[in-house]
Amino acid sequence: MRQAERSAILVSGWHRMSYIYEDGTYVSRELEKVIRKLHSVVGNAVTDNRFVIFGSGTTQLLAAAVHALSLTNSSVSSPARLLTSIPYYAMYKDQAEFFDSAHLKFEGNASAWKQSGRNDNITQVIEVVTSPNNPDGKLKRAVLDGPNVKTLHDYAYYWPHFSPITHPVDEDLSLFSLSKTTGHAGSRFGWGLVKDKAIYEKMDRFIRLTSMGVSKETQLHVLQLLKVVVGDGGNEIFSFGYGTVKKRWETLNKIFSMSTRFSLQTIKPEYCNYFKKVREFTPSYAWVKCERPEDTNCYEIFRAAKITGRNGNVFGSEERFVRLSLIRSQDDFDQLIAMLKKLVYHEEDVPSENFMYI
Amino acid sequence: MRQAERSAILVSGWHRMSYIYEDGTYVSRELEKVIRKLHSVVGNAVTDNRFVIFGSGTTQLLAAAVHALSLTNSSVSSPARLLTSIPYYAMYKDQAEFFDSAHLKFEGNASAWKQSGRNDNITQVIEVVTSPNNPDGKLKRAVLDGPNVKTLHDYAYYWPHFSPITHPVDEDLSLFSLSKTTGHAGSRFGWGLVKDKAIYEKMDRFIRLTSMGVSKETQLHVLQLLKVVVGDGGNEIFSFGYGTVKKRWETLNKIFSMSTRFSLQTIKPEYCNYFKKVREFTPSYAWVKCERPEDTNCYEIFRAAKITGRNGNVFGSEERFVRLSLIRSQDDFDQLIAMLKKLVYHEEDVPSENFMYI
Repeated sequence: MRQAERSAILVSGWHRMSYIYEDGTYVSRELEKVIRKLHSVVGNAVTDNRFVIFGSGTTQLLAAAVHALSLTNSSVSSPARLLTSIPYYAMYKDQAEFFDSAHLKFEGNASAWKQSGRNDNITQVIEVVTSPNNPDGKLKRAVLDGPNVKTLHDYAYYWPHFSPITHPVDEDLSLFSLSKTTGHAGSRFGWGLVKDKAIYEKMDRFIRLTSMGVSKETQLHVLQLLKVVVGDGGNEIFSFGYGTVKKRWETLNKIFSMSTRFSLQTIKPEYCNYFKKVREFTPSYAWVKCERPEDTNCYEIFRAAKITGRNGNVFGSEERFVRLSLIRSQDDFDQLIAMLKKLVYHEEDVPSENFMYI
Repeated sequence: MRQAERSAILVSGWHRMSYIYEDGTYVSRELEKVIRKLHSVVGNAVTDNRFVIFGSGTTQLLAAAVHALSLTNSSVSSPARLLTSIPYYAMYKDQAEFFDSAHLKFEGNASAWKQSGRNDNITQVIEVVTSPNNPDGKLKRAVLDGPNVKTLHDYAYYWPHFSPITHPVDEDLSLFSLSKTTGHAGSRFGWGLVKDKAIYEKMDRFIRLTSMGVSKETQLHVLQLLKVVVGDGGNEIFSFGYGTVKKRWETLNKIFSMSTRFSLQTIKPEYCNYFKKVREFTPSYAWVKCERPEDTNCYEIFRAAKITGRNGNVFGSEERFVRLSLIRSQDDFDQLIAMLKKLVYHEEDVPSENFMYI
């Protein structure tokens, strides 16, 4: 850097390196355009008549969305209830309990709430629908409806490498995450598609009051990345990604098919509009069940075998389940497979010669 | 980008572009080192025996710090009170009211609280000390003490371009902001120096639950920037910055010295350990008072003269005050000066020839 350039940092910074862009928002309009284009080429979401909101990861947008939806609760004195399906992404519960707002209470299981008759059309309810679901990779629909129900859709995993793209989603409030689109988790970038202007404005205020918008370095990098992705209609990255995860699932399925002790989630193949064929689901996580009655803590059984998963109870489920991540480096995955083989090999009823072909 | 590189984005991303660095934290240790070095060369803060925490701007760290301090309130049923001095940075109030936590209530004026006798050593109190203060640029000290008082120091403006560096601050919890250090507001980067491990860990959890850490693109950029700054002991950027703001204050003081209608804050010069001389304060904002009894809304009077400031009531003060920003581009500043001249020129008792020398 020359001296003049260096000295110019400060004063030009006060203008051009501001919190906001020239239109007074913290959102790069160029990046917004590329994101709309991305959804259009992938066919996973309708972006017409939607506001696009940016956040420091879907993490921040989740908090913003739940906050905004809980504030529409003006006429009722009791806090809005946050509901979802079991197993669920732990962040929903963690955030709700951590913020400890007067307007929100984490309640958990939407189906149980419905059956209990507590869905009285008076208590405000926010249902989070994660589709494909974390941890089990299944496509999900809302359980609740009614005038008192607001639905928040977390579509972080609704990309061709993880799931058939069955239709373009067309919901009131949908969230997406760069970390699951291109893998850049460390960039902390997510976005939301929001139909209702009042909800959008409340979310925008949340983002401003918690971080004054989203890093411009990040927005610039994401713009470059997504331009490459949409450049060939996503073909290269999604074909590569799908191929990679599919191969991992084939390996995994082979191992688990020899086991009577452990089982994997199964999901029926569906037609994928993106790849124009019926295809398997290839979720980012294996949701493993320990089938033996005495194996009550599946996490500990895997940990003893040097495999670190996440305990099913983190997802509001039983300890009989453990989540294993498949979206790691190839080295980490190979290590996982080596350890899994040892674990299944030691089951009494598995013939050792079966392992030759994995 | 070659095809192999592009395809590698996805899977390598799942490993190397993770939320966390290799040590399991979201904090670049290289950047942490440069920040400690920066405080040491500027002499504005002691960093020994401190945890360094990163946030998406001081905005996020403020929320994290207030949250962490309010949670130490376990034995008491009433919420902690958030206190500060008037005039204060509006964000403190806005955040506290927006999050509407069961553990915190914004109360406002620390001196009034002290005098009211409500400082009963039982109710937990968090005092925010902003030094130099936003909006008036004055150095501040805590008003309250006692076993029930936690103090949070916002040192965003404690840099040589804005203030004499009178001593290295050595407090329990201090916050700093890149936007006021180098001007890169849009990067959304701030940091805190935290003495107490339990408070640090609560803040860390807040950052994880609201954004899963801080953008790596940002951290990389900030590392490059601050390496340049510490490279010459900050000499070039702080001399340039101080020179620029000083010149702006000289112009401003000339204009206001001709006015009987408006007055500016005054702060006595102090010895600056960084520049090794007694020097004027050169705050980032002018805190203007409308002196005429009939000028009850100073913001509106400036607005009518095409000068957009911020109303004093935003800072918990009277509408008789308005805050004008001096940390804008040279063009914006020149525009401000042109409009100010017109405004003061039209005061009846100012001779027009005085304006020739500004």
